Amino acid sequence: MNLYETLAADIEGQVARGVLLEGDKLPSVRQTSQHRGLSISTVLRAYSLLESKGIIESRPQSGYFVRTRQSSMPRPAPLAASAPLELSSEVDVSRLVLSTLRTIRAHGAVPLGSPYPDPAPFPWPRINQYANAIARRSQHWSVMDDLPPGNPQLMRQIARRHLENGLPVDPSEIIITVGATEAINLCLQAAAKPGDTVAVESPTFYAMLHAIERMGMRALEIPTDPREGISIEALRSILSQQRIAACMVMPNFQNPLGFQMPDARKRELVELLASYDIPAIENDVYHELYYGDSHPTSLKTYDTKGLVLHCSSFSKSLTANYRIGWALPGRYTAQVEKLKFLNTLTTPTLPQMAIADYLQNDGYDRHLRKVRKGYEQRARMMAAAVLRFFPAGTRVSEPQGGYVLWVELPQGVDAMKLYALALERKITIGPGHMFSARGSYTNYIRLNYSYPWSKEIEDALRMLGRLAGQLA
Amino acid sequence: MNLYETLAADIEGQVARGVLLEGDKLPSVRQTSQHRGLSISTVLRAYSLLESKGIIESRPQSGYFVRTRQSSMPRPAPLAASAPLELSSEVDVSRLVLSTLRTIRAHGAVPLGSPYPDPAPFPWPRINQYANAIARRSQHWSVMDDLPPGNPQLMRQIARRHLENGLPVDPSEIIITVGATEAINLCLQAAAKPGDTVAVESPTFYAMLHAIERMGMRALEIPTDPREGISIEALRSILSQQRIAACMVMPNFQNPLGFQMPDARKRELVELLASYDIPAIENDVYHELYYGDSHPTSLKTYDTKGLVLHCSSFSKSLTANYRIGWALPGRYTAQVEKLKFLNTLTTPTLPQMAIADYLQNDGYDRHLRKVRKGYEQRARMMAAAVLRFFPAGTRVSEPQGGYVLWVELPQGVDAMKLYALALERKITIGPGHMFSARGSYTNYIRLNYSYPWSKEIEDALRMLGRLAGQLA
Repeated sequence: MNLYETLAADIEGQVARGVLLEGDKLPSVRQTSQHRGLSISTVLRAYSLLESKGIIESRPQSGYFVRTRQSSMPRPAPLAASAPLELSSEVDVSRLVLSTLRTIRAHGAVPLGSPYPDPAPFPWPRINQYANAIARRSQHWSVMDDLPPGNPQLMRQIARRHLENGLPVDPSEIIITVGATEAINLCLQAAAKPGDTVAVESPTFYAMLHAIERMGMRALEIPTDPREGISIEALRSILSQQRIAACMVMPNFQNPLGFQMPDARKRELVELLASYDIPAIENDVYHELYYGDSHPTSLKTYDTKGLVLHCSSFSKSLTANYRIGWALPGRYTAQVEKLKFLNTLTTPTLPQMAIADYLQNDGYDRHLRKVRKGYEQRARMMAAAVLRFFPAGTRVSEPQGGYVLWVELPQGVDAMKLYALALERKITIGPGHMFSARGSYTNYIRLNYSYPWSKEIEDALRMLGRLAGQLA
Repeated sequence: MNLYETLAADIEGQVARGVLLEGDKLPSVRQTSQHRGLSISTVLRAYSLLESKGIIESRPQSGYFVRTRQSSMPRPAPLAASAPLELSSEVDVSRLVLSTLRTIRAHGAVPLGSPYPDPAPFPWPRINQYANAIARRSQHWSVMDDLPPGNPQLMRQIARRHLENGLPVDPSEIIITVGATEAINLCLQAAAKPGDTVAVESPTFYAMLHAIERMGMRALEIPTDPREGISIEALRSILSQQRIAACMVMPNFQNPLGFQMPDARKRELVELLASYDIPAIENDVYHELYYGDSHPTSLKTYDTKGLVLHCSSFSKSLTANYRIGWALPGRYTAQVEKLKFLNTLTTPTLPQMAIADYLQNDGYDRHLRKVRKGYEQRARMMAAAVLRFFPAGTRVSEPQGGYVLWVELPQGVDAMKLYALALERKITIGPGHMFSARGSYTNYIRLNYSYPWSKEIEDALRMLGRLAGQLA
């Protein structure tokens, strides 16, 4: 390889790894020449090669810039509207998910398959300090103190946070739960009956499928646009033909697609469902992890009839270990409160108080700003690395928030096979099989990019790409 | 009042309050004469008066003793077998229970209505210390570490404790849950379907009724002997006539009756149910709080077919605030594990580890010995006080463990009215209405005797007796 080819490959690698981002200015020809100890003409040949490959572009009077990738980064194709829409499915996905999560937690494996964010930058030591202080000062604090709906301090803090984020809520509508898992379960149980059909996005976050499975309901997967969310047109057509008991969606940074539903479509969805008097269960656990300028709206923002049951938690934004979530169940509040009491009696008091103290006194926003910035950067780095290492025909999502990338492998690559091969090499991934009750997405995987970029992660992605290539 | 009458009333009061227990030897006539500064003849007249009232008895060559109360303390009559056995009921008791528990936690009220033991003598400061130590030393301990079935250390400790208590269990059968509430819920959900009929004791602990209500099942209340438990004869007759999907019982120190089912009857119950292939859900949360010489057996002890789903927790023996329970679901283990995953994903790790550390390193047995001794003594003191202060016709249970007394008021006294009147005087009680899906036990109340005996409690019981008298 010539000197100029070596330099070009090096810069291409930096772009692929996301060290250089779209629109970034490259060092000038003169600077590069000095830093690398290369002649001006060698640097010029390298830049020119990169330009011809569409990786950088020269702008008059300005220098060289990394090209915006609109053209070079393929987008996932919208899901076909020809899917067998009228057939709902029994749901039995939890065994697969549980066994997958069990291996994903295996020690020393590269955690690309983890559903949780890297805990390292999270302020759990501070929250533990608050918990310790409460445990020391509280005399005879009792399980009876926080009967449903929950700890009043925490309920106030949650209401305050919703207000800051643009959603005024009545604190008395809040019901504290054991993680968002319990919130989603209780909301669905309040809104629909065993045997009922529930409309979901496709791919579907498996937590939603679990809730449907737990109650012996049926899932109907609705075509979903990877940038705009559930197809309102498809849903409208379904509703004109058959009875749907509820609709479950993640309008913000859906797991696994990562989209943020545009405000107009959120409103349209709420209005369409309301016109049929159908409750919408909204899973908004990633709401704090937006990459945009401001906090996204939620379906609840547009709810005038109390038909949106909003579910969230602190597990993805503060600490997963405390298992604290909440529901805003609208007109189903009394029912959800009763079901909470029946399901687990109370949510433990100490974690509720510790989180309330943290929210009141500590740097939640500072923590979140730091986390969001890192995630946004790594989303691009991981997408670039996947497109670089994986076989031709691989496509990736464009997350607007959260920390997971959805990867479509070439047709015929079995994600479970890739999962097994990767595991032998101590690399974990989330196979697409977990995201459908109908056995779709067998050639998709979900990758977690919340961990700091490292040689280990890059090597893992290279290995995954090679394995996928062998399976293709 | 004469001197001898004053002395007699004083001694009678000590017996009523349980300061002097059945069979206790009274100070000799000479001692009493010296201590009180009374003449021998005055003391003799007082003792003689007490003897004539049946409160004490003289034994030749031995002195005076408090009479055993077999004759003087009425026992609750066995429940009539003529109840409308064939009719099961829909269950909707949770609203009443939740609203009652809410007022029971009201600050400053006498906690006779509390379902929880007085936390004061419990070692929660030690457990909090273990939790703090774990939180300090654990780097990146994760919610994924303890996916169902649960934290392996805690599972080992629970298996060890079961072994010490005479029940060898396979640690891999243990599933950790959010309190016994979740364990009971998941076991019932695994064992039966919505609409099914479940046989329960009568009166029934409301936690069992809640589990039935949560799943939309029906409860069939079976006559229950206040000393020997659920009537096996009645159950046998029912089973020959109709289909029962499951049977839920508390064989040890049932809440509210306090009985310990004799071993022979436990075995008989397990065998009867097994002959119909019917699962038995056993709620054994009070097992550590026995008054007898040794730990009681459980239904699980006699289970050869994996049909007993055993549920327990640390909430009544160690700490209620951590909300840690477990299930031993026999042949339903895989199903319950899956339902646990669906219901709340995981049980928080930190409380599990803290309890495991306490069980491994600290004085669980010492703590329990102290607690049991106090409860046994106070059971008698409270029973005596109730019989002393409440209107004629009042009957009380004879708890063999736990910390609640079941009180039958004269026919026609409405326990909810008593509850409301008592609450105005800052006294809480558990109205009998909570213990039946059929609206029975309206003239019963449950009293908690876990708190140290005090003038406040005695005054509260006197007031309750007076109010009950007004309602009679």
